[in-house]
Amino acid sequence: MRLRFRQSLDDLKEKLLVMAGMAEQAIQRAIEAYRVRDTSICDLVDRGELAINRLEREIDQMALDLLAMEQPMAIDLRFILAVIKINADLERVGDAARSISDRVRELQAFPVADLPIDIPRMASLAGSMVRKALQAFIEADAQTAETVLSMDDSVDKLNGAAHYTLLTLMKKEPNLTPQALNALMISRSLERVADHATNISEDVIFWVRGADVRHKMGEKPATEKTGTRS
Amino acid sequence: MRLRFRQSLDDLKEKLLVMAGMAEQAIQRAIEAYRVRDTSICDLVDRGELAINRLEREIDQMALDLLAMEQPMAIDLRFILAVIKINADLERVGDAARSISDRVRELQAFPVADLPIDIPRMASLAGSMVRKALQAFIEADAQTAETVLSMDDSVDKLNGAAHYTLLTLMKKEPNLTPQALNALMISRSLERVADHATNISEDVIFWVRGADVRHKMGEKPATEKTGTRS
Repeated sequence: MRLRFRQSLDDLKEKLLVMAGMAEQAIQRAIEAYRVRDTSICDLVDRGELAINRLEREIDQMALDLLAMEQPMAIDLRFILAVIKINADLERVGDAARSISDRVRELQAFPVADLPIDIPRMASLAGSMVRKALQAFIEADAQTAETVLSMDDSVDKLNGAAHYTLLTLMKKEPNLTPQALNALMISRSLERVADHATNISEDVIFWVRGADVRHKMGEKPATEKTGTRS
Repeated sequence: MRLRFRQSLDDLKEKLLVMAGMAEQAIQRAIEAYRVRDTSICDLVDRGELAINRLEREIDQMALDLLAMEQPMAIDLRFILAVIKINADLERVGDAARSISDRVRELQAFPVADLPIDIPRMASLAGSMVRKALQAFIEADAQTAETVLSMDDSVDKLNGAAHYTLLTLMKKEPNLTPQALNALMISRSLERVADHATNISEDVIFWVRGADVRHKMGEKPATEKTGTRS
């Protein structure tokens, strides 16, 4: 029974990694659609978002089943809760990809403008944050998770700079406002992706620190309330 | 013991309602700060966000303790998971309020512009979505939750209209671009608040439908996996 529970925890982790891969791919595709102005890639993003939403519910249900299955230990509980939270963040990375894809569609109505911001670079940074956060999760590594938190500042700065640059451009060349505004929204979406990677890292830290707390459980109950466990 | 568990579930619900009240107040304050251009209200929003973040962690810990305390029934499990998810959404409503407050601070550098969009109206609609979603949660009422989902379309439309109106304005009067852009970002933040209310409603539906599933549990195990429970 306990063995089967451990196997189920592994399955859950595996599924979350699939979810992460899909979310990351969605962002890559959306940015590729932006780069080459190809709405057929947007269609892929939109279909992918539906699959991501389905997988989110599936992972939630698995987590629920695991909690119902038997009385998980404190460390397993924290792990399952971390999965539930990371799952929600990954789903919203999918939403961000969808938002970017919507913007690319809108851009089709306007001539291509050479804008002074580097969207692909921002995307690559945000994407690597998601990857690193998931790596921290796989390896239960709070230190790696902390490096993600510091990367968030860089993305915020890039987004702030993009905001300023595009605002200046819109004032100087109002005819480019639609293109600049769409790029600005894409930049904001990428900043949100970075925020989700940050949330994931915080959840990993919460989970791993919980593991540390648990090591002290031999001496005394973890908290007042869990002290009543048999 | 069981009685104490029920009492703890009630405490958890109570705390989540406090969290909801704080998130709602944060939005109201941020919009008031925008309306009267008063950055001292922004300070309140910023301090409030820290309190919201603290309460989020506290609620998560309570939920974790409850899961650890004893083996909750399927319906209680779903309830606790719904709380964890709603909690995360409320925290992000607080983030949205903070974003709006940041925009209000930026706006101080520019002359007041009379913009052709009704931010307070959008805020009131988004706020009422949050309230209604929480009402659905308190009353375990999936139908009320579903009305919130339909309200989301109205907010999306208002946001879309604001986007178009402000884009047109920026093209025609480039000198108003900073003000229009900030208003547009505030409109987007309010749309996100509405999205969070939508997420909360979906979680309520997930929880309540879980309750329905549970009613059938007398005949057979709820799922393959929970069938192994004692």
